[in-house]
Amino acid sequence: MAPGPISIIRSTDVVRVVHSPADASLAADRLRPNGPVVMVPTMGALHDGHVSLIQRAHSLGASVVVSIFVNPLQFGDKADLAKYPSDIDRDLAACRDANVDLVWAPSVDHMYPSGFATRVTVSGVSEPYEGRHRPGHFDGVATVVTKLFSVIRPDVAVFGAKDFQQVAVIKRLAIDLGLPVTIDVAPTVRDHDGLALSSRNVRLDPLARTQALAIPRSLRAASSAWQSGVRGRGELEAIVTAELVDLDVDYVAVVDPSTLSERTNDTGSVVVLIAATVGDVRLIDNVVLG
Amino acid sequence: MAPGPISIIRSTDVVRVVHSPADASLAADRLRPNGPVVMVPTMGALHDGHVSLIQRAHSLGASVVVSIFVNPLQFGDKADLAKYPSDIDRDLAACRDANVDLVWAPSVDHMYPSGFATRVTVSGVSEPYEGRHRPGHFDGVATVVTKLFSVIRPDVAVFGAKDFQQVAVIKRLAIDLGLPVTIDVAPTVRDHDGLALSSRNVRLDPLARTQALAIPRSLRAASSAWQSGVRGRGELEAIVTAELVDLDVDYVAVVDPSTLSERTNDTGSVVVLIAATVGDVRLIDNVVLG
Repeated sequence: MAPGPISIIRSTDVVRVVHSPADASLAADRLRPNGPVVMVPTMGALHDGHVSLIQRAHSLGASVVVSIFVNPLQFGDKADLAKYPSDIDRDLAACRDANVDLVWAPSVDHMYPSGFATRVTVSGVSEPYEGRHRPGHFDGVATVVTKLFSVIRPDVAVFGAKDFQQVAVIKRLAIDLGLPVTIDVAPTVRDHDGLALSSRNVRLDPLARTQALAIPRSLRAASSAWQSGVRGRGELEAIVTAELVDLDVDYVAVVDPSTLSERTNDTGSVVVLIAATVGDVRLIDNVVLG
Repeated sequence: MAPGPISIIRSTDVVRVVHSPADASLAADRLRPNGPVVMVPTMGALHDGHVSLIQRAHSLGASVVVSIFVNPLQFGDKADLAKYPSDIDRDLAACRDANVDLVWAPSVDHMYPSGFATRVTVSGVSEPYEGRHRPGHFDGVATVVTKLFSVIRPDVAVFGAKDFQQVAVIKRLAIDLGLPVTIDVAPTVRDHDGLALSSRNVRLDPLARTQALAIPRSLRAASSAWQSGVRGRGELEAIVTAELVDLDVDYVAVVDPSTLSERTNDTGSVVVLIAATVGDVRLIDNVVLG
Protein backbone atom coordinates (compact mmCIF):
# COMPACT_ATOMS: atom_id res chain seq x y z
CA MET A 1 0.00 0.00 0.00
CA ALA A 2 3.04 2.31 -0.49
CA PRO A 3 1.65 5.54 -1.95
CA GLY A 4 2.63 6.39 -5.52
CA PRO A 5 3.43 9.95 -6.61
CA ILE A 6 -0.20 11.06 -6.90
CA SER A 7 -0.98 9.71 -3.46
CA ILE A 8 1.93 11.67 -2.00
CA ILE A 9 0.61 14.89 -3.48
CA ARG A 10 -2.81 14.18 -1.99
CA SER A 11 -1.64 12.72 1.29
CA THR A 12 -2.49 15.87 3.23
CA ASP A 13 -6.06 15.76 1.92
CA VAL A 14 -8.82 14.26 3.94
CA VAL A 15 -11.14 11.71 2.46
CA ARG A 16 -14.87 12.49 2.55
CA VAL A 17 -16.66 10.12 4.96
CA VAL A 18 -20.40 9.76 5.51
CA HIS A 19 -22.26 7.40 7.80
CA SER A 20 -26.06 7.45 7.37
CA PRO A 21 -27.72 6.06 4.23
CA ALA A 22 -29.39 9.44 3.64
CA ASP A 23 -26.05 11.29 3.73
CA ALA A 24 -24.48 8.63 1.52
CA SER A 25 -27.26 8.90 -1.03
CA LEU A 26 -26.96 12.70 -1.18
CA ALA A 27 -23.16 12.60 -1.39
CA ALA A 28 -23.30 10.05 -4.23
CA ASP A 29 -25.85 12.21 -6.07
CA ARG A 30 -23.37 15.11 -5.92
CA LEU A 31 -20.73 12.95 -7.61
CA ARG A 32 -23.07 11.78 -10.38
CA PRO A 33 -22.79 14.86 -12.64
CA ASN A 34 -19.04 14.22 -12.95
CA GLY A 35 -19.65 10.94 -14.75
CA PRO A 36 -20.03 7.26 -13.87
CA VAL A 37 -19.96 6.44 -10.16
CA VAL A 38 -18.03 3.26 -9.38
CA MET A 39 -18.53 1.51 -6.07
CA VAL A 40 -16.18 -0.83 -4.21
CA PRO A 41 -18.10 -2.56 -1.40
CA THR A 42 -15.75 -3.73 1.37
CA MET A 43 -15.81 -4.98 4.94
CA GLY A 44 -12.81 -2.80 5.78
CA ALA A 45 -9.45 -4.22 6.92
CA LEU A 46 -8.28 -2.99 3.54
CA HIS A 47 -5.25 -4.60 1.93
CA ASP A 48 -3.50 -4.31 -1.43
CA GLY A 49 -6.25 -6.42 -3.01
CA HIS A 50 -8.75 -3.72 -2.12
CA VAL A 51 -6.39 -1.03 -3.37
CA SER A 52 -6.23 -2.83 -6.70
CA LEU A 53 -10.06 -2.83 -6.79
CA ILE A 54 -10.05 0.91 -6.11
CA GLN A 55 -7.46 1.55 -8.84
CA ARG A 56 -9.56 -0.51 -11.24
CA ALA A 57 -12.64 1.50 -10.17
CA HIS A 58 -10.81 4.74 -11.05
CA SER A 59 -10.17 3.38 -14.55
CA LEU A 60 -13.87 2.54 -14.99
CA GLY A 61 -15.53 5.82 -13.99
CA ALA A 62 -15.29 9.36 -12.79
CA SER A 63 -15.85 8.90 -9.05
CA VAL A 64 -15.07 6.06 -6.66
CA VAL A 65 -17.21 5.29 -3.62
CA VAL A 66 -15.92 2.76 -1.08
CA SER A 67 -18.28 1.32 1.50
CA ILE A 68 -16.83 -0.07 4.72
CA PHE A 69 -19.27 -2.25 6.61
CA VAL A 70 -18.69 -5.51 8.44
CA ASN A 71 -22.10 -6.97 7.72
CA PRO A 72 -23.31 -9.06 10.68
CA LEU A 73 -26.10 -10.55 8.53
CA GLN A 74 -23.60 -12.55 6.48
CA PHE A 75 -21.85 -14.09 9.49
CA GLY A 76 -23.77 -17.15 10.67
CA ASP A 77 -20.86 -17.81 13.02
CA LYS A 78 -20.82 -14.93 15.52
CA ALA A 79 -17.33 -15.95 16.72
CA ASP A 80 -16.09 -15.45 13.16
CA LEU A 81 -17.73 -12.00 13.15
CA ALA A 82 -16.07 -11.10 16.47
CA LYS A 83 -12.65 -12.15 15.12
CA TYR A 84 -13.01 -10.22 11.84
CA PRO A 85 -10.20 -7.62 11.74
CA SER A 86 -11.11 -3.93 11.87
CA ASP A 87 -9.09 -0.69 11.78
CA ILE A 88 -11.14 2.21 10.49
CA ASP A 89 -8.37 4.84 10.80
CA ARG A 90 -6.02 2.72 8.74
CA ASP A 91 -8.83 2.05 6.22
CA LEU A 92 -9.59 5.76 5.85
CA ALA A 93 -5.89 6.52 5.31
CA ALA A 94 -5.77 3.82 2.63
CA CYS A 95 -8.87 5.31 0.94
CA ARG A 96 -7.37 8.79 1.07
CA ASP A 97 -4.10 7.53 -0.42
CA ALA A 98 -6.05 5.74 -3.16
CA ASN A 99 -7.92 8.96 -4.04
CA VAL A 100 -11.32 7.60 -3.08
CA ASP A 101 -13.97 10.29 -3.59
CA LEU A 102 -16.38 9.11 -0.92
CA VAL A 103 -16.26 6.61 1.91
CA TRP A 104 -19.54 5.35 3.28
CA ALA A 105 -19.03 3.76 6.70
CA PRO A 106 -22.46 3.03 8.17
CA SER A 107 -23.07 1.60 11.62
CA VAL A 108 -25.06 -1.60 12.11
CA ASP A 109 -27.99 0.56 13.30
CA HIS A 110 -27.77 2.62 10.11
CA MET A 111 -28.04 -0.48 7.97
CA TYR A 112 -30.43 -2.48 10.14
CA PRO A 113 -32.59 -0.02 12.07
CA SER A 114 -35.01 -1.16 14.76
CA GLY A 115 -37.75 -3.29 13.21
CA PHE A 116 -35.63 -4.31 10.20
CA ALA A 117 -37.50 -7.24 8.64
CA THR A 118 -36.40 -7.59 5.00
CA ARG A 119 -34.29 -10.34 3.47
CA VAL A 120 -33.14 -10.78 -0.10
CA THR A 121 -32.43 -14.38 -1.06
CA VAL A 122 -30.97 -15.83 -4.25
CA SER A 123 -31.62 -19.51 -4.71
CA GLY A 124 -29.71 -21.84 -7.05
CA VAL A 125 -26.19 -20.52 -7.46
CA SER A 126 -26.02 -19.57 -3.76
CA GLU A 127 -26.83 -23.05 -2.48
CA PRO A 128 -23.76 -25.30 -2.91
CA TYR A 129 -20.22 -24.79 -1.54
CA GLU A 130 -20.13 -21.57 0.54
CA GLY A 131 -23.93 -21.67 0.82
CA ARG A 132 -23.87 -25.13 2.33
CA HIS A 133 -20.93 -24.44 4.65
CA ARG A 134 -22.08 -20.99 5.77
CA PRO A 135 -25.89 -21.18 6.06
CA GLY A 136 -27.48 -17.76 5.65
CA HIS A 137 -24.24 -16.22 4.41
CA PHE A 138 -25.46 -15.37 0.91
CA ASP A 139 -28.84 -14.12 2.19
CA GLY A 140 -26.82 -11.63 4.23
CA VAL A 141 -24.68 -10.75 1.22
CA ALA A 142 -27.67 -10.34 -1.12
CA THR A 143 -29.55 -8.22 1.42
CA VAL A 144 -26.67 -5.87 2.18
CA VAL A 145 -25.62 -5.54 -1.47
CA THR A 146 -29.18 -4.66 -2.51
CA LYS A 147 -29.17 -1.94 0.15
CA LEU A 148 -25.67 -0.69 -0.74
CA PHE A 149 -26.72 -0.41 -4.39
CA SER A 150 -30.08 1.20 -3.55
CA VAL A 151 -28.43 3.91 -1.51
CA ILE A 152 -25.41 4.71 -3.73
CA ARG A 153 -26.91 3.74 -7.11
CA PRO A 154 -23.49 3.08 -8.68
CA ASP A 155 -23.10 2.68 -12.43
CA VAL A 156 -20.48 0.01 -11.83
CA ALA A 157 -19.56 -2.06 -8.78
CA VAL A 158 -16.21 -3.82 -8.53
CA PHE A 159 -15.81 -7.15 -6.72
CA GLY A 160 -12.77 -9.39 -6.37
CA ALA A 161 -12.60 -12.69 -8.24
CA LYS A 162 -11.41 -14.43 -5.07
CA ASP A 163 -15.02 -14.53 -3.88
CA PHE A 164 -16.07 -16.41 -7.00
CA GLN A 165 -19.43 -17.69 -5.78
CA GLN A 166 -20.29 -14.32 -4.21
CA VAL A 167 -19.79 -12.69 -7.60
CA ALA A 168 -22.09 -15.28 -9.22
CA VAL A 169 -24.76 -14.58 -6.59
CA ILE A 170 -24.48 -10.81 -7.01
CA LYS A 171 -24.62 -11.03 -10.81
CA ARG A 172 -27.82 -13.12 -10.54
CA LEU A 173 -29.27 -10.65 -8.01
CA ALA A 174 -28.52 -7.63 -10.19
CA ILE A 175 -30.12 -9.23 -13.26
CA ASP A 176 -33.15 -10.49 -11.33
CA LEU A 177 -33.96 -7.22 -9.56
CA GLY A 178 -33.11 -5.04 -12.57
CA LEU A 179 -30.48 -3.18 -10.55
CA PRO A 180 -29.03 -0.61 -12.97
CA VAL A 181 -25.42 -1.51 -12.22
CA THR A 182 -22.66 -3.31 -14.09
CA ILE A 183 -20.87 -5.92 -11.99
CA ASP A 184 -17.15 -5.78 -12.71
CA VAL A 185 -14.84 -8.56 -11.53
CA ALA A 186 -11.21 -7.79 -10.72
CA PRO A 187 -8.52 -10.49 -10.74
CA THR A 188 -7.35 -11.93 -7.42
CA VAL A 189 -4.26 -10.21 -6.04
CA ARG A 190 -1.70 -12.62 -4.56
CA ASP A 191 1.15 -12.08 -2.14
CA HIS A 192 4.76 -12.79 -3.28
CA ASP A 193 4.34 -16.37 -2.02
CA GLY A 194 1.15 -16.92 -4.03
CA LEU A 195 -1.38 -16.71 -1.18
CA ALA A 196 -4.50 -14.79 -2.24
CA LEU A 197 -4.77 -11.53 -0.29
CA SER A 198 -7.50 -11.66 2.34
CA SER A 199 -8.30 -9.61 5.41
CA ARG A 200 -8.27 -12.91 7.31
CA ASN A 201 -4.57 -13.56 6.47
CA VAL A 202 -3.41 -11.32 9.35
CA ARG A 203 -4.71 -14.03 11.68
CA LEU A 204 -2.38 -16.71 10.24
CA ASP A 205 0.68 -17.45 12.43
CA PRO A 206 3.94 -18.26 10.58
CA LEU A 207 3.33 -22.03 10.61
CA ALA A 208 -0.27 -21.65 9.41
CA ARG A 209 0.88 -19.23 6.74
CA THR A 210 3.32 -21.85 5.41
CA GLN A 211 0.62 -24.52 5.51
CA ALA A 212 -1.83 -22.19 3.71
CA LEU A 213 0.50 -22.05 0.72
CA ALA A 214 -0.79 -25.53 -0.17
CA ILE A 215 -3.89 -23.73 -1.50
CA PRO A 216 -2.23 -21.70 -4.28
CA ARG A 217 0.12 -24.64 -4.91
CA SER A 218 -2.90 -26.91 -5.48
CA LEU A 219 -4.40 -24.40 -7.92
CA ARG A 220 -1.11 -24.19 -9.83
CA ALA A 221 -1.08 -28.00 -9.99
CA ALA A 222 -4.58 -27.91 -11.45
CA SER A 223 -3.51 -25.31 -14.03
CA SER A 224 -0.50 -27.42 -15.05
CA ALA A 225 -2.64 -30.52 -15.37
CA TRP A 226 -5.17 -28.58 -17.48
CA GLN A 227 -2.34 -27.34 -19.72
CA SER A 228 -1.17 -30.95 -20.13
CA GLY A 229 -4.63 -31.84 -21.38
CA VAL A 230 -6.28 -33.20 -18.23
CA ARG A 231 -10.02 -32.47 -18.46
CA GLY A 232 -11.70 -34.97 -16.13
CA ARG A 233 -13.39 -33.29 -13.19
CA GLY A 234 -12.55 -36.17 -10.86
CA GLU A 235 -8.93 -36.20 -11.98
CA LEU A 236 -8.54 -32.46 -11.44
CA GLU A 237 -10.21 -32.66 -8.02
CA ALA A 238 -7.85 -35.47 -7.01
CA ILE A 239 -4.81 -33.44 -8.07
CA VAL A 240 -5.95 -30.47 -5.99
CA THR A 241 -7.00 -32.55 -2.98
CA ALA A 242 -3.62 -34.33 -2.92
CA GLU A 243 -1.92 -30.97 -2.26
CA LEU A 244 -4.30 -30.12 0.60
CA VAL A 245 -3.74 -33.20 2.81
CA ASP A 246 -2.54 -31.12 5.78
CA LEU A 247 -5.53 -28.75 5.72
CA ASP A 248 -9.07 -29.11 7.01
CA VAL A 249 -10.82 -29.00 3.62
CA ASP A 250 -14.48 -27.91 3.37
CA TYR A 251 -14.70 -28.61 -0.34
CA VAL A 252 -12.75 -28.92 -3.58
CA ALA A 253 -15.00 -28.51 -6.60
CA VAL A 254 -14.45 -28.38 -10.36
CA VAL A 255 -17.58 -26.79 -11.85
CA ASP A 256 -19.03 -24.69 -14.62
CA PRO A 257 -17.98 -21.04 -14.09
CA SER A 258 -21.42 -19.61 -14.97
CA THR A 259 -23.77 -22.01 -13.22
CA LEU A 260 -21.46 -23.55 -10.59
CA SER A 261 -23.04 -26.84 -11.60
CA GLU A 262 -21.03 -30.03 -12.02
CA ARG A 263 -22.20 -30.26 -15.61
CA THR A 264 -19.79 -28.00 -17.49
CA ASN A 265 -20.85 -26.07 -20.56
CA ASP A 266 -19.73 -26.79 -24.10
CA THR A 267 -16.74 -24.44 -24.04
CA GLY A 268 -15.25 -26.75 -21.43
CA SER A 269 -14.09 -23.90 -19.24
CA VAL A 270 -14.16 -24.79 -15.53
CA VAL A 271 -13.46 -23.12 -12.21
CA VAL A 272 -11.70 -24.90 -9.37
CA LEU A 273 -13.17 -23.79 -6.03
CA ILE A 274 -11.47 -24.43 -2.68
CA ALA A 275 -12.39 -23.71 0.92
CA ALA A 276 -10.16 -24.94 3.73
CA THR A 277 -9.31 -24.04 7.28
CA VAL A 278 -5.72 -23.54 8.42
CA GLY A 279 -5.29 -23.16 12.17
CA ASP A 280 -8.57 -21.42 12.94
CA VAL A 281 -8.63 -19.32 9.75
CA ARG A 282 -10.99 -20.32 6.96
CA LEU A 283 -9.65 -19.44 3.51
CA ILE A 284 -11.18 -19.63 0.03
CA ASP A 285 -9.51 -19.46 -3.36
CA ASN A 286 -10.19 -20.43 -6.96
CA VAL A 287 -8.81 -20.54 -10.47
CA VAL A 288 -10.60 -20.53 -13.82
CA LEU A 289 -9.20 -23.00 -16.34
CA GLY A 290 -9.73 -22.71 -20.09
CA MET B 1 -63.37 7.59 -16.26
CA ALA B 2 -65.04 10.37 -18.31
CA PRO B 3 -62.20 12.58 -19.58
CA GLY B 4 -62.05 16.15 -18.28
CA PRO B 5 -61.25 19.12 -20.50
CA ILE B 6 -57.49 18.58 -20.46
CA SER B 7 -57.91 14.92 -21.38
CA ILE B 8 -60.09 15.89 -24.33
CA ILE B 9 -57.41 18.21 -25.66
CA ARG B 10 -54.85 15.45 -25.39
CA SER B 11 -57.09 12.60 -26.43
CA THR B 12 -55.55 12.34 -29.88
CA ASP B 13 -52.08 11.96 -28.37
CA VAL B 14 -50.55 8.58 -27.88
CA VAL B 15 -49.16 7.58 -24.53
CA ARG B 16 -45.52 6.47 -24.47
CA VAL B 17 -45.28 2.73 -23.74
CA VAL B 18 -42.16 0.71 -23.07
CA HIS B 19 -41.82 -2.96 -22.28
CA SER B 20 -38.31 -4.07 -21.31
CA PRO B 21 -36.73 -3.00 -18.00
CA ALA B 22 -33.79 -1.46 -19.91
CA ASP B 23 -36.11 0.69 -22.04
CA ALA B 24 -38.13 1.64 -18.96
CA SER B 25 -35.02 2.67 -17.08
CA LEU B 26 -33.80 4.83 -19.97
CA ALA B 27 -37.23 6.40 -20.51
CA ALA B 28 -37.53 7.23 -16.79
CA ASP B 29 -34.05 8.78 -16.84
CA ARG B 30 -35.19 11.07 -19.64
CA LEU B 31 -38.07 12.28 -17.47
CA ARG B 32 -35.87 12.94 -14.43
CA PRO B 33 -34.49 16.35 -15.50
CA ASN B 34 -38.07 17.70 -15.54
CA GLY B 35 -38.43 17.17 -11.79
CA PRO B 36 -39.67 14.47 -9.42
CA VAL B 37 -40.78 11.22 -11.06
CA VAL B 38 -43.89 9.74 -9.47
CA MET B 39 -44.75 6.10 -10.04
CA VAL B 40 -48.13 4.39 -9.84
CA PRO B 41 -47.61 0.61 -9.83
CA THR B 42 -50.71 -1.23 -11.08
CA MET B 43 -51.84 -4.63 -12.27
CA GLY B 44 -53.87 -3.03 -15.06
CA ALA B 45 -57.67 -3.34 -15.31
CA LEU B 46 -57.59 0.34 -14.45
CA HIS B 47 -60.64 1.91 -12.82
CA ASP B 48 -61.45 5.32 -11.34
CA GLY B 49 -59.49 4.40 -8.22
CA HIS B 50 -56.34 4.14 -10.35
CA VAL B 51 -57.23 7.38 -12.13
CA SER B 52 -57.40 9.09 -8.72
CA LEU B 53 -53.92 7.69 -7.92
CA ILE B 54 -52.64 9.10 -11.21
CA GLN B 55 -54.20 12.49 -10.55
CA ARG B 56 -52.64 12.50 -7.11
CA ALA B 57 -49.30 11.54 -8.69
CA HIS B 58 -49.52 14.55 -11.01
CA SER B 59 -49.95 16.79 -7.95
CA LEU B 60 -46.83 15.30 -6.32
CA GLY B 61 -44.27 15.56 -9.11
CA ALA B 62 -43.36 16.53 -12.63
CA SER B 63 -43.76 13.20 -14.43
CA VAL B 64 -46.02 10.22 -13.86
CA VAL B 65 -44.98 6.66 -14.70
CA VAL B 66 -47.60 3.91 -14.54
CA SER B 67 -46.53 0.28 -14.54
CA ILE B 68 -48.98 -2.35 -15.72
CA PHE B 69 -47.99 -5.85 -14.71
CA VAL B 70 -50.11 -8.70 -13.43
CA ASN B 71 -47.46 -10.20 -11.19
CA PRO B 72 -47.73 -14.00 -11.15
CA LEU B 73 -45.36 -14.17 -8.17
CA GLN B 74 -47.99 -12.67 -5.86
CA PHE B 75 -50.75 -15.11 -6.84
CA GLY B 76 -50.41 -18.31 -4.85
CA ASP B 77 -53.75 -19.36 -6.34
CA LYS B 78 -53.16 -19.77 -10.08
CA ALA B 79 -56.93 -19.90 -10.71
CA ASP B 80 -57.16 -16.41 -9.17
CA LEU B 81 -54.36 -15.28 -11.50
CA ALA B 82 -56.14 -16.73 -14.53
CA LYS B 83 -59.38 -14.92 -13.60
CA TYR B 84 -57.69 -11.55 -13.02
CA PRO B 85 -59.21 -9.07 -15.49
CA SER B 86 -56.99 -7.64 -18.23
CA ASP B 87 -57.58 -5.15 -21.06
CA ILE B 88 -54.35 -3.46 -22.12
CA ASP B 89 -55.91 -1.29 -24.86
CA ARG B 90 -58.46 0.12 -22.45
CA ASP B 91 -55.69 0.63 -19.85
CA LEU B 92 -53.50 2.52 -22.32
CA ALA B 93 -56.44 4.74 -23.30
CA ALA B 94 -57.07 5.48 -19.63
CA CYS B 95 -53.39 6.35 -19.13
CA ARG B 96 -53.43 8.60 -22.19
CA ASP B 97 -56.57 10.36 -20.95
CA ALA B 98 -54.96 10.80 -17.53
CA ASN B 99 -51.87 12.41 -19.11
CA VAL B 100 -49.51 9.68 -17.97
CA ASP B 101 -45.99 10.44 -19.20
CA LEU B 102 -44.80 6.86 -19.44
CA VAL B 103 -46.40 3.44 -19.26
CA TRP B 104 -44.19 0.49 -18.47
CA ALA B 105 -45.92 -2.75 -19.43
CA PRO B 106 -43.39 -5.57 -19.09
CA SER B 107 -44.07 -9.19 -19.98
CA VAL B 108 -43.58 -11.96 -17.43
CA ASP B 109 -40.34 -12.87 -19.24
CA HIS B 110 -39.14 -9.29 -18.93
CA MET B 111 -39.66 -9.33 -15.18
CA TYR B 112 -38.68 -12.93 -14.50
CA PRO B 113 -36.17 -13.99 -17.14
CA SER B 114 -34.96 -17.57 -17.43
CA GLY B 115 -32.98 -18.49 -14.32
CA PHE B 116 -34.70 -15.90 -12.13
CA ALA B 117 -33.83 -16.91 -8.56
CA THR B 118 -34.26 -13.88 -6.30
CA ARG B 119 -36.91 -13.30 -3.63
CA VAL B 120 -37.43 -10.34 -1.36
CA THR B 121 -39.25 -11.17 1.85
CA VAL B 122 -40.50 -8.92 4.62
CA SER B 123 -41.25 -10.70 7.87
CA GLY B 124 -43.41 -9.36 10.71
CA VAL B 125 -45.99 -7.02 9.25
CA SER B 126 -46.51 -9.31 6.23
CA GLU B 127 -47.36 -12.38 8.29
CA PRO B 128 -50.92 -12.05 9.67
CA TYR B 129 -54.17 -11.47 7.73
CA GLU B 130 -53.43 -11.39 3.99
CA GLY B 131 -50.08 -13.11 4.65
CA ARG B 132 -51.79 -16.01 6.39
CA HIS B 133 -54.62 -16.31 3.85
CA ARG B 134 -52.47 -15.85 0.76
CA PRO B 135 -49.16 -17.64 1.46
CA GLY B 136 -46.33 -16.18 -0.59
CA HIS B 137 -48.42 -13.18 -1.66
CA PHE B 138 -46.32 -10.54 0.05
CA ASP B 139 -43.03 -12.17 -1.01
CA GLY B 140 -44.31 -11.70 -4.56
CA VAL B 141 -45.32 -8.11 -3.83
CA ALA B 142 -42.00 -7.25 -2.15
CA THR B 143 -39.98 -8.83 -4.95
CA VAL B 144 -41.82 -7.10 -7.78
CA VAL B 145 -41.95 -3.74 -6.03
CA THR B 146 -38.20 -3.85 -5.37
CA LYS B 147 -37.69 -4.50 -9.08
CA LEU B 148 -40.18 -1.84 -10.20
CA PHE B 149 -38.42 0.71 -7.99
CA SER B 150 -34.93 -0.39 -9.07
CA VAL B 151 -35.78 0.05 -12.72
CA ILE B 152 -37.77 3.32 -12.58
CA ARG B 153 -36.12 4.85 -9.48
CA PRO B 154 -39.16 7.02 -8.70
CA ASP B 155 -38.93 9.85 -6.17
CA VAL B 156 -42.45 9.04 -5.00
CA ALA B 157 -44.66 5.98 -5.43
CA VAL B 158 -48.42 6.17 -4.90
CA PHE B 159 -50.39 3.22 -3.51
CA GLY B 160 -54.07 2.98 -2.62
CA ALA B 161 -55.12 2.80 1.04
CA LYS B 162 -57.48 -0.09 0.21
CA ASP B 163 -54.48 -2.43 0.26
CA PHE B 164 -53.67 -1.40 3.82
CA GLN B 165 -51.36 -4.27 4.72
CA GLN B 166 -49.60 -4.08 1.34
CA VAL B 167 -48.75 -0.45 2.07
CA ALA B 168 -47.36 -1.42 5.49
CA VAL B 169 -45.18 -4.11 3.87
CA ILE B 170 -43.91 -1.74 1.18
CA LYS B 171 -43.13 1.02 3.69
CA ARG B 172 -41.10 -1.47 5.75
CA LEU B 173 -39.34 -2.72 2.60
CA ALA B 174 -38.43 0.80 1.46
CA ILE B 175 -36.99 1.73 4.87
CA ASP B 176 -35.11 -1.55 5.26
CA LEU B 177 -33.47 -1.55 1.83
CA GLY B 178 -32.82 2.20 1.82
CA LEU B 179 -34.87 2.60 -1.35
CA PRO B 180 -34.73 6.33 -2.16
CA VAL B 181 -38.50 6.65 -2.62
CA THR B 182 -41.31 8.24 -0.64
CA ILE B 183 -44.35 5.98 -0.25
CA ASP B 184 -47.53 8.03 -0.66
CA VAL B 185 -50.89 6.58 0.30
CA ALA B 186 -54.04 7.74 -1.50
CA PRO B 187 -57.50 7.41 0.06
CA THR B 188 -59.73 4.56 -1.09
CA VAL B 189 -62.13 5.56 -3.86
CA ARG B 190 -65.65 4.17 -3.40
CA ASP B 191 -68.48 3.68 -5.85
CA HIS B 192 -71.78 5.55 -5.34
CA ASP B 193 -73.03 2.60 -3.27
CA GLY B 194 -69.98 2.63 -0.98
CA LEU B 195 -68.16 -0.40 -2.39
CA ALA B 196 -64.40 0.20 -2.60
CA LEU B 197 -63.29 0.26 -6.24
CA SER B 198 -61.38 -2.87 -7.20
CA SER B 199 -60.47 -4.49 -10.49
CA ARG B 200 -62.12 -7.62 -9.12
CA ASN B 201 -65.54 -5.90 -8.84
CA VAL B 202 -66.27 -6.52 -12.54
CA ARG B 203 -66.60 -10.20 -11.64
CA LEU B 204 -69.46 -9.56 -9.16
CA ASP B 205 -72.92 -10.45 -10.54
CA PRO B 206 -75.82 -8.20 -9.44
CA LEU B 207 -76.72 -10.38 -6.43
CA ALA B 208 -73.10 -10.64 -5.29
CA ARG B 209 -72.70 -6.91 -5.74
CA THR B 210 -75.64 -6.30 -3.40
CA GLN B 211 -74.26 -8.77 -0.87
CA ALA B 212 -70.82 -7.14 -1.09
CA LEU B 213 -72.28 -3.88 0.18
CA ALA B 214 -72.29 -5.45 3.63
CA ILE B 215 -68.54 -4.71 3.69
CA PRO B 216 -68.72 -0.89 3.48
CA ARG B 217 -71.86 -1.03 5.69
CA SER B 218 -69.91 -2.89 8.36
CA LEU B 219 -67.11 -0.32 8.22
CA ARG B 220 -69.62 2.51 8.58
CA ALA B 221 -71.07 0.69 11.59
CA ALA B 222 -67.60 0.52 13.11
CA SER B 223 -67.07 4.25 12.48
CA SER B 224 -70.39 5.11 14.13
CA ALA B 225 -69.60 2.93 17.12
CA TRP B 226 -66.16 4.56 17.41
CA GLN B 227 -67.78 8.00 17.28
CA SER B 228 -70.15 6.92 20.06
CA GLY B 229 -67.13 6.10 22.18
CA VAL B 230 -66.78 2.35 21.63
CA ARG B 231 -63.07 1.46 21.94
CA GLY B 232 -62.96 -2.24 22.78
CA ARG B 233 -61.38 -4.30 20.00
CA GLY B 234 -63.69 -7.23 20.66
CA GLU B 235 -66.75 -5.01 20.64
CA LEU B 236 -65.76 -3.34 17.35
CA GLU B 237 -65.01 -6.71 15.75
CA ALA B 238 -68.41 -8.02 16.85
CA ILE B 239 -70.19 -5.00 15.34
CA VAL B 240 -68.41 -5.52 12.01
CA THR B 241 -68.84 -9.27 11.97
CA ALA B 242 -72.58 -8.94 12.63
CA GLU B 243 -72.96 -7.08 9.31
CA LEU B 244 -71.03 -9.76 7.39
CA VAL B 245 -73.13 -12.82 8.29
CA ASP B 246 -74.01 -13.56 4.65
CA LEU B 247 -70.38 -13.46 3.45
CA ASP B 248 -67.57 -15.98 3.65
CA VAL B 249 -65.29 -13.99 5.97
CA ASP B 250 -61.52 -14.64 6.02
CA TYR B 251 -60.88 -12.22 8.87
CA VAL B 252 -62.13 -9.16 10.67
CA ALA B 253 -59.36 -7.49 12.66
CA VAL B 254 -59.07 -4.33 14.72
CA VAL B 255 -55.36 -3.59 15.03
CA ASP B 256 -52.68 -0.95 15.40
CA PRO B 257 -52.34 0.91 12.08
CA SER B 258 -48.51 1.02 12.18
CA THR B 259 -47.64 -2.45 13.43
CA LEU B 260 -50.84 -4.38 12.54
CA SER B 261 -50.49 -5.90 16.00
CA GLU B 262 -53.45 -6.45 18.30
CA ARG B 263 -51.81 -4.26 20.91
CA THR B 264 -52.76 -0.73 19.85
CA ASN B 265 -50.47 2.19 20.45
CA ASP B 266 -51.09 4.98 22.97
CA THR B 267 -52.86 7.28 20.53
CA GLY B 268 -55.60 4.67 20.39
CA SER B 269 -55.96 4.90 16.64
CA VAL B 270 -56.96 1.59 15.08
CA VAL B 271 -57.58 0.15 11.64
CA VAL B 272 -60.40 -2.26 10.92
CA LEU B 273 -59.30 -4.83 8.31
CA ILE B 274 -61.73 -7.06 6.44
CA ALA B 275 -61.33 -9.83 3.87
CA ALA B 276 -64.36 -11.74 2.67
CA THR B 277 -65.46 -13.71 -0.37
CA VAL B 278 -68.72 -12.94 -2.16
CA GLY B 279 -69.68 -15.46 -4.82
CA ASP B 280 -66.18 -16.41 -5.98
CA VAL B 281 -64.72 -12.93 -5.63
CA ARG B 282 -62.44 -12.19 -2.69
CA LEU B 283 -62.65 -8.56 -1.54
CA ILE B 284 -60.68 -6.58 1.04
CA ASP B 285 -61.46 -3.25 2.65
CA ASN B 286 -60.53 -1.24 5.73
CA VAL B 287 -61.14 1.93 7.68
CA VAL B 288 -58.86 3.81 10.06
CA LEU B 289 -60.60 5.02 13.23
CA GLY B 290 -59.25 7.83 15.40
